[in-house]
Amino acid sequence: MKVNDIHYLTIRMEGSSVFMVEQNKLPFEFSIFEAKTYKDTCIAISTMITRGAGAIGAAGGFAMAQAFLENDPFGFAQGSHGVGEVPRAESGVPRAESRGSFLQQARDDIRSTRPTAQNLFYAIDRVYEAGVKNGTNAAVEEAQKIAAENVEEGRTIGTYGRELIKDGMKVMTHCNAGWLGFVDYGTAVSVIHLAHEQGKKFFVWADETRPRSQGARLTAWELVNAGIDHAIVPDNAGAWLMEKGDVDMIIVGADRIAANGDTANKIGTFEKAIVAKRFNIPFYVAAPFSTFDMSIPDGSHIPIEQRSEDEVHYQTGPDSKGLMHTIRVSAPGSKAINPAFDVTPAELITGIITDKGIVKPETNAIAALFNRK
Amino acid sequence: MKVNDIHYLTIRMEGSSVFMVEQNKLPFEFSIFEAKTYKDTCIAISTMITRGAGAIGAAGGFAMAQAFLENDPFGFAQGSHGVGEVPRAESGVPRAESRGSFLQQARDDIRSTRPTAQNLFYAIDRVYEAGVKNGTNAAVEEAQKIAAENVEEGRTIGTYGRELIKDGMKVMTHCNAGWLGFVDYGTAVSVIHLAHEQGKKFFVWADETRPRSQGARLTAWELVNAGIDHAIVPDNAGAWLMEKGDVDMIIVGADRIAANGDTANKIGTFEKAIVAKRFNIPFYVAAPFSTFDMSIPDGSHIPIEQRSEDEVHYQTGPDSKGLMHTIRVSAPGSKAINPAFDVTPAELITGIITDKGIVKPETNAIAALFNRK
Repeated sequence: MKVNDIHYLTIRMEGSSVFMVEQNKLPFEFSIFEAKTYKDTCIAISTMITRGAGAIGAAGGFAMAQAFLENDPFGFAQGSHGVGEVPRAESGVPRAESRGSFLQQARDDIRSTRPTAQNLFYAIDRVYEAGVKNGTNAAVEEAQKIAAENVEEGRTIGTYGRELIKDGMKVMTHCNAGWLGFVDYGTAVSVIHLAHEQGKKFFVWADETRPRSQGARLTAWELVNAGIDHAIVPDNAGAWLMEKGDVDMIIVGADRIAANGDTANKIGTFEKAIVAKRFNIPFYVAAPFSTFDMSIPDGSHIPIEQRSEDEVHYQTGPDSKGLMHTIRVSAPGSKAINPAFDVTPAELITGIITDKGIVKPETNAIAALFNRK
Repeated sequence: MKVNDIHYLTIRMEGSSVFMVEQNKLPFEFSIFEAKTYKDTCIAISTMITRGAGAIGAAGGFAMAQAFLENDPFGFAQGSHGVGEVPRAESGVPRAESRGSFLQQARDDIRSTRPTAQNLFYAIDRVYEAGVKNGTNAAVEEAQKIAAENVEEGRTIGTYGRELIKDGMKVMTHCNAGWLGFVDYGTAVSVIHLAHEQGKKFFVWADETRPRSQGARLTAWELVNAGIDHAIVPDNAGAWLMEKGDVDMIIVGADRIAANGDTANKIGTFEKAIVAKRFNIPFYVAAPFSTFDMSIPDGSHIPIEQRSEDEVHYQTGPDSKGLMHTIRVSAPGSKAINPAFDVTPAELITGIITDKGIVKPETNAIAALFNRK
């Protein structure tokens, strides 16, 4: 996506550093965060400097590649040597016996940054296996490949999905499944971006998405940036808007999809899907196949991340002079809960817009499409 | 309710001034706002210095009484003289011909402060009629009577409703239908307060209730103050919590109830009711009969107040040093919608806890109870 006419990727790796759009500072400041080590990247994932299914995946892959680089700065451990078979140990280069455990530890560290996101595990595993089999350079190449695939998946999803959007429609989305949630394009918002590029005239409702307000902060910022007509909707106003007939379709992203189509996505997605069902409003999920976890039959197997209650109690933003403040927005002394995701059952989902086409959320249909080349 | 061991009413009138707990400053500062004229009181209602069905009603009645006092500072227009029949016009006392129009204008001004709240119109009409018929003192007495009734209604509702709460329950509430929303006690939260006074052990989920966060700011503050176990729930987490089986009952207040039981309440109530229905969770509304608008057959006749989008874009609160700031929490350049209420259809409501007992939300049952002495 372009910002001030410059094309940016949400996340990219250059040398041994990972560069990310600093999403905690948006929409008030556009800046790039550099993570020089895999541990920096882990912190960037867990503190949500980078966030969103696809961006987390790319970040996880890059972090794993960084771990290979850090453990093998001179690129010795390549090809058939593999893990634990580094021929020499020099100053600054871990000894052979510690190499396997370093990479194992790094893999665990990266995996534990966010427990729900399927793309994270998918990317870590691919990079780890490539590195173990073919060495550090292969790990880096695999991580770059995952990021490149992510861009292409987002573009493809947008191309399939935009056919659903007709002139005059009002389309609701929740959280941010846009460019910022992926390496480029996104999923749900890719559909919106690409329909807009076609010249279609439609209106977007961006759910605020408390407590982190990714809708009001990130999706809205993307839509302002792209010049797409929209308004922010307080999460409480969904049913009111849907009953009025002012929502023609809902498209959301996904953090993990079970084999039967049950979908984990940002907290509140489940509630919107229940309400949409009452008013017979089509409810689409948009996600690449890397978001599917075919090892679990249904959504009951998806762990839900519980985040700090401080995200509910505090908000950060600029005052009228542009000075940033973090303020308390709840009663001192109160506790809060803060589940980051919920699981929307397949029965409430009209279709899943994937990088291989739109599929009904049914085990057989998903498996058939998943296995198609 | 007691604050630091002193018993306060949310709103009261003394002389020609109305004193209100300043709710925009809660939960960070407890202070009392004095409205010296009916116009001050109008501003206090529309800017939500005082808010909540019952408090708005009392404020509307007091404002109408203030208008009588302002128009008749020496109490001439009493008894059979009535409006427009003031015998003398002196310096500072409006001339006879302008008296009727002044009171009409005041009545319109007060009515236009909040369009949805039934208690407002109910109170204005009662005070206006008393004043027109029996003079200024009667208007003031009627306003005081409405406020006193409000206290008694809240206590009675709490007494009926608390029988629904059993030890070990988890009770969810939305917005603030507590002491702060009424003259004392409240409705939904009166049930909670009085069950707590009985010594029952239960847990309260206070919905945050964006955009004004009355749940996180006011209900949570009341619960902290009363020592009742609770946690704030981001509005998006309702379905997640209900599916887990962690909500045994939902009790909310009401701003207007149609003859068939359709209920206007804070935005988001409708969405919670739809979700509760899916999980067969009892959903109660608590409100006195002054909140019923028996002139409308159903909720489609209730106008919904649209408030400023700035309530979505900005939040106010203290930083870690206690300094207050108003910060932007959404993307600059984005618009937002901000409907203040929605209408929950009677079919989603288990029962209405009134000051005359608990009633099924059905036209005949409501009419029968309404007409009972």
